[in-house]
This record gives sequence, C-alpha cells and structure tokens, in this order.
Amino acid sequence: MQTIGIDFGGTSVKIGVCEQAKILAHYPRIPTPEFDSPASLLVEMVRAVGLLRDRFPDVAAIGVGVPGFVDWKTGIVHSLTNVPGWDRFPLRRHLDEATGLPVCVDNDANTVAYAEWRLGSGQGSRNLVAVTLGTGVGGGLILENRLYRGSDSLAGEIGQISIDLHGRPGPYGNSGALERYIGNAQVTERAMAAYAGRGEKRERRACSPEVLAAAAGKGDPVALALWEEIASELATVLAGVVWLLNPDTIVVGGGIAGAGDILFEPLRRRLTGQLDAVFSAGLRVVQARFGSDAGILGAAILGADAVADNTVLQEDEIPSR
Amino acid sequence: MQTIGIDFGGTSVKIGVCEQAKILAHYPRIPTPEFDSPASLLVEMVRAVGLLRDRFPDVAAIGVGVPGFVDWKTGIVHSLTNVPGWDRFPLRRHLDEATGLPVCVDNDANTVAYAEWRLGSGQGSRNLVAVTLGTGVGGGLILENRLYRGSDSLAGEIGQISIDLHGRPGPYGNSGALERYIGNAQVTERAMAAYAGRGEKRERRACSPEVLAAAAGKGDPVALALWEEIASELATVLAGVVWLLNPDTIVVGGGIAGAGDILFEPLRRRLTGQLDAVFSAGLRVVQARFGSDAGILGAAILGADAVADNTVLQEDEIPSR
Repeated sequence: MQTIGIDFGGTSVKIGVCEQAKILAHYPRIPTPEFDSPASLLVEMVRAVGLLRDRFPDVAAIGVGVPGFVDWKTGIVHSLTNVPGWDRFPLRRHLDEATGLPVCVDNDANTVAYAEWRLGSGQGSRNLVAVTLGTGVGGGLILENRLYRGSDSLAGEIGQISIDLHGRPGPYGNSGALERYIGNAQVTERAMAAYAGRGEKRERRACSPEVLAAAAGKGDPVALALWEEIASELATVLAGVVWLLNPDTIVVGGGIAGAGDILFEPLRRRLTGQLDAVFSAGLRVVQARFGSDAGILGAAILGADAVADNTVLQEDEIPSR
Repeated sequence: MQTIGIDFGGTSVKIGVCEQAKILAHYPRIPTPEFDSPASLLVEMVRAVGLLRDRFPDVAAIGVGVPGFVDWKTGIVHSLTNVPGWDRFPLRRHLDEATGLPVCVDNDANTVAYAEWRLGSGQGSRNLVAVTLGTGVGGGLILENRLYRGSDSLAGEIGQISIDLHGRPGPYGNSGALERYIGNAQVTERAMAAYAGRGEKRERRACSPEVLAAAAGKGDPVALALWEEIASELATVLAGVVWLLNPDTIVVGGGIAGAGDILFEPLRRRLTGQLDAVFSAGLRVVQARFGSDAGILGAAILGADAVADNTVLQEDEIPSR
C-alpha cells in the first residue's frame, strides 16, 4: 500500500510518499514558522498531498505525526510544544474532508516507535521503548505487541521524567526533567561551559552533538566526560522505565543517537549497572534504523496499518472513555 | 467461586479462603523464617490448604503472591528479596501436584494491583498504577484492562526507580531508588534523625509511620515536614510514571498509605505540580480499599480469574518468548 507520511515538526513539515520502509518521493520541506495559523498551514499540506497524488494516484491513506499532545482517536490536536495556535484543532477531520483519504494523526514519537517496531531495529519485539533524542526528548511504547497510548492518548513523554527531584527546573514544574539535560541545546551549552571552564572559548556550532561525538572519538577528554554524563542521565531514566515495564528492547534514535558507540557503550554499561541481572539479561539496547526520515516513514507506516486494521474510527464511532 | 489465597511474605505466610472480595476463613499465620528451606515451607502450605479444604470442600483454585521475581507463566520463583533459598523453585508445579488444584503464582504487588482493579478502589479503570508502601515499595500495572507483566514477568518495580541519580545507594546500583527513602524503616530512621536534630531523642517505635501520622495530625512540625518530604519523593516517581503511561488511576496502599490525608493531600498537590494539566485532569489518586488482607484477597481473586479465563497454562503449553 502506498501512503503519504507527514512529519509535522516545529521547524519544518516534511512530506513523502512511502511504501513499506521506502520513501518513493519527497515533497519540498515546508517551513512551519512561515505559516501563522493552523488553517494556512493546512492549506499548504493539502496542496502538497494533491501534487504528490498527481504522481502517485494509488495513495490510499495519510499518516501524520505531530510534535505534541494529540488524541489519536479523534485526531484532534490539543497543543503543540513549539507551534503556537494549534489548540484543539481537528486536524484529522480537516485533512480527511479536504483530501477524501483516510487520515491517522498521532504523536510523532509514537509514529517513530511504531516504525522501528514494525520495520526497523525493533522488529520481533513484544515490549519496546523508543526514545528520540533531539531538540526535546520524546518517547513511544509498544506494549504486548500494540502501540500503547494511555488513557488520554498522551503516554510516552520520557523527556519529562525527572532524574533529580532537586534538579534543573522543568517546563511543567517537574524539576530534573531529562529533556533539560540532554536536549540538543542543553548538550551544546554544557559543552561550551565545560570548555570555558578549562579556559577554552568555543563557538556554539563547535559544540554541536555531531562535533562533540567526533571529538570524543579522537579522545578529547572534555567531550568524553560529557558523553559519559549524558549516558548516565539517560540511563537513569531508562533504568526506571525498565524497572517499571520490563521491556525486551530499547530503541534510541534522533540526533544524539548518531554518536553511535560514543553514546551506546557508556549507555549500555550504565544501564546494566542500575538493574538486577534478570532485567538486563533479556534486554537489547539498539540504535534506531531510521534516521532523519523516521518521522515521514513512521507516520506513513502507522497510517497504512491503521487503514488495513480499520482502526481509523469515525468521530461519531469513538467510544467514550 | 471459592479460592484459597496465599500471601507469601518475608515475615509470615498468610492464607485464607475467599469468595469475591470476602475472606471466609483465615489459617493461622505461618512464620516464614522458621522454615529453613522451600521444601519445608511448601509442606506447611500444603497442610494448611488441606485443613482449609476440609472445611471448604468447594475450593476450586489456589492463588499465590510472592515477594520477589517470579515467572507467572511457569510459576517458577526466580528469587525472593527477603527469603533465602528460593532460587528457581517451581512453586506452582509442586503446589499443583500436592493439592490437585489449579495454581496461579504471581508477584505479590501484581496480585494487589489486580484486586484493587477488579473489586477495590480502582474498579472501572482502564490504565491503573498500584503502589504498595511497606518494608519495600512495590508496584503493579493494569494496562488496557489487563495485568501487565512485561517481557520476563518482572514489571512494576516502582520502588527501584530513582528520584536522584546522585542519591542514596540502591540495592542494584540504582542510586536514588525510591525504596531507600520511603520504606518503613527508612521513614522511621529519618524521623529519629529529624527529632534528634532538634535535641529530642525518640525511640524507634515512637517513630513508626503510624505514630508519625498521628503526630502530623496534631500539628507536630517535624512530622509534618517529613510527610511533605515523603509526598514529594513519591510524587516525583509517580509523576514520571504518569508522563510515561498516562494512567487514569493511581491506587496507593500498604502501611504508610494508612496515614490518609496526611499523605494524600501533599501527594496529590505535588503530583499535579509536576504534570501538564492534560495529564492530571483525568487522573484519580486514591487510597487502596484492601488493607492488611490485600495480599490474601489479591492472590485469591487473581487465582479465581486465572482459572475462569483458563489462563493457568500447563508448563508444556508455555509459548516460547
């Protein structure tokens, strides 16, 4: 089945036509901040879908991943962290009406978790935790072979879990929120501070996660120490998740995960060091298969399965809680 | 259906005949430490079951809750935290063979979570988190209307989740493990230290959670401050669990929960203070219905349902992972 995946990000909206784990065509990136209302961005999305369908008339569904709180049953977006104006916006209904295609809307980290489980590094897992490391830290859960969304469709917010009840202020009063330590901007700021502490002034772009990974690979002690801290902080949250959920697989993706063994070696070591052996014996910690296209693919794969399983409900069919 | 519930604790084994949420008869408590091997304790359990069945011949099943790691599918106990010698002991098979009854063995916190969901404070919930506060801190999860056990039947270890990555040493290398702050003994020690810090020497028994709850009720500032700390620590872990699982209900039981509003008022306040409003709006935080009999009832109710649902598998029917 060919489906269109829409990766709705705070910086840009990425759209592509997919079949299984392959992207057949990309639409040019749509710069999110240039559209000042949900309605105007919606018009642009619908235009993109139309142009892609001219080339791929067999497209059978649309999947959308959004960066925030969304009710997947109704397709209503509650609010988006970095995109103003999206408050209680019925995205699925509008897209459905404008295109005539079945539409599935879910949290972006959920779509990524689903893609990794179905066709990525997490294939064969029964209980999977996916973490996406980027501007923020997102998460998605596959439990007992199903995408787990929780009572209000909000589950998986791994980045808001605290590593220190007296730690850095969190965005919701949640002191010590993981995101405030290992989000991309925070990593860069910590590196700049660490180099400055040794009398070395470094530019912001010389402290990006990519540059820091390369520096650690060459033995730079500041970078190595920072990755060890990042691994420790991430491991603390993931150990808690493992104690709670006893998963068989953790998939780590997003920008920082691109550091590869620079991150995964200390991460696995520190995770095992915080768990009883019966918990870690059956646990795999793996890098995500899908990189920067994970959002498009995830949305498309989830959309395809939702249509195939007939789980894209009409709004008037939604069971009350 | 009448079933026998066995609450296998580190101090004593409590056994009763149950029907729904009612205990029809108790067997005298069996002091666990007086039996130096699994085999000798098993003989005593079988004897108790036999005597209870003489009075209640309609007993149709046995449920057992054990304080440690157990594979519910095989009924094999991996290890128990406070009972030596129980390493890879096939408790279900032995009990089944000796009594001729179907037997269901599960983690004790799981049985309690199940009982609260089926017949207690959590009735009607779809996604429920149960926490048991006692010598240790246990937990159980009902997710999407099923007892969730994880990939190796080990899920729900809420007491091992960290509140501070640089905090108190945990039993498994997990610094800041919640259990090391709000376990019964830790609460008592913290109270003794707090009173001592004000020049007041207090006996251990004058610092039990019960005494501290009564003191807080009378406005004792040391006790009030300590309950505020306990609530903050518990809320930090529960907030993390809510961010991750978005449950509709949290049930708190066990000794410390007996403090009632002394605990629940600051707990609810501090939990809401660490969550986005969309997470807390649909969340109930309630005291457990079942008190000191929760273990017997939980095991019996789970045993009854396992037989009714025919989910007590034979060992050779167990699906490989």
